[in-house]
Amino acid sequence: MPRIDLDPAALRAGTGYPAPFDEPVAGRLQRRLAPVAGLTAMGISHVLLRPGAWSSQRHWHEGEDEVLVMLSGEAVLIEDEGETVLRPGDCAAWPAGVRNGHHLVNRSNADCTFLCMSAGDRMAGGAYSDIDMVFTEQGYLHRDGTPYPARRTA
Amino acid sequence: MPRIDLDPAALRAGTGYPAPFDEPVAGRLQRRLAPVAGLTAMGISHVLLRPGAWSSQRHWHEGEDEVLVMLSGEAVLIEDEGETVLRPGDCAAWPAGVRNGHHLVNRSNADCTFLCMSAGDRMAGGAYSDIDMVFTEQGYLHRDGTPYPARRTA
Repeated sequence: MPRIDLDPAALRAGTGYPAPFDEPVAGRLQRRLAPVAGLTAMGISHVLLRPGAWSSQRHWHEGEDEVLVMLSGEAVLIEDEGETVLRPGDCAAWPAGVRNGHHLVNRSNADCTFLCMSAGDRMAGGAYSDIDMVFTEQGYLHRDGTPYPARRTA
Repeated sequence: MPRIDLDPAALRAGTGYPAPFDEPVAGRLQRRLAPVAGLTAMGISHVLLRPGAWSSQRHWHEGEDEVLVMLSGEAVLIEDEGETVLRPGDCAAWPAGVRNGHHLVNRSNADCTFLCMSAGDRMAGGAYSDIDMVFTEQGYLHRDGTPYPARRTA
């Protein structure tokens, strides 16, 4: 297995978030690399954020660890405690089950890119900190358990 | 969880390899970040190679996926097929169970640093491609199962 080709031309937009939660991630392009590399125990995504784009709705995972490594450009990491600017070579990590929602927002005037690795129990789901939505094996639900009319894909 | 502090001053040398296999990694400094970050499903190590140092003996894992992201400097990735130079922002991945030994060698005149993530079944062990050694739950063994007089720590 040689170096993984991180060609930005291979990145694609798209989210399964129900409206209007899909709007802030419209400028997020990504590619899942685990299938490319043949990985089965770890997820890895190559992500590009256009200026203004969010990486996701601010969220946490019940059963998955996440690790992010910035590759290029600059983004702001937002968590319960506040904001942290991430630059190339910076690394952040979120343990499974810690209910401190996190996401990246590109407030710069240029694209930024990063890699995001995950491992653990994806089916354990999680929740979004700032909106009435959780994610489970069944898809996107309101906090009261009512499904959204959208399929969970990301 | 804010950005992880990747202070090179926190890195330490050391290996459990039996002699003489420990010599090429004497210039490898590292720090395991999963305990720092509270991760339980994924391993992550911050590694620095002095000029001439190897990341490890060339090896593969039976049950663990590995992902490497170069942060600074330059190293040569060596696998069965040959060599690939890795530079900052480059990413390489090795799937669990693929018996293609890999390691990095710093042939430059400056330090290089990278992050290495792993997930899967660590206890499934693996083997070294170029020497008479395997690693298992029991530690370092010759290929015939005879133990080496050293304890597996890395």
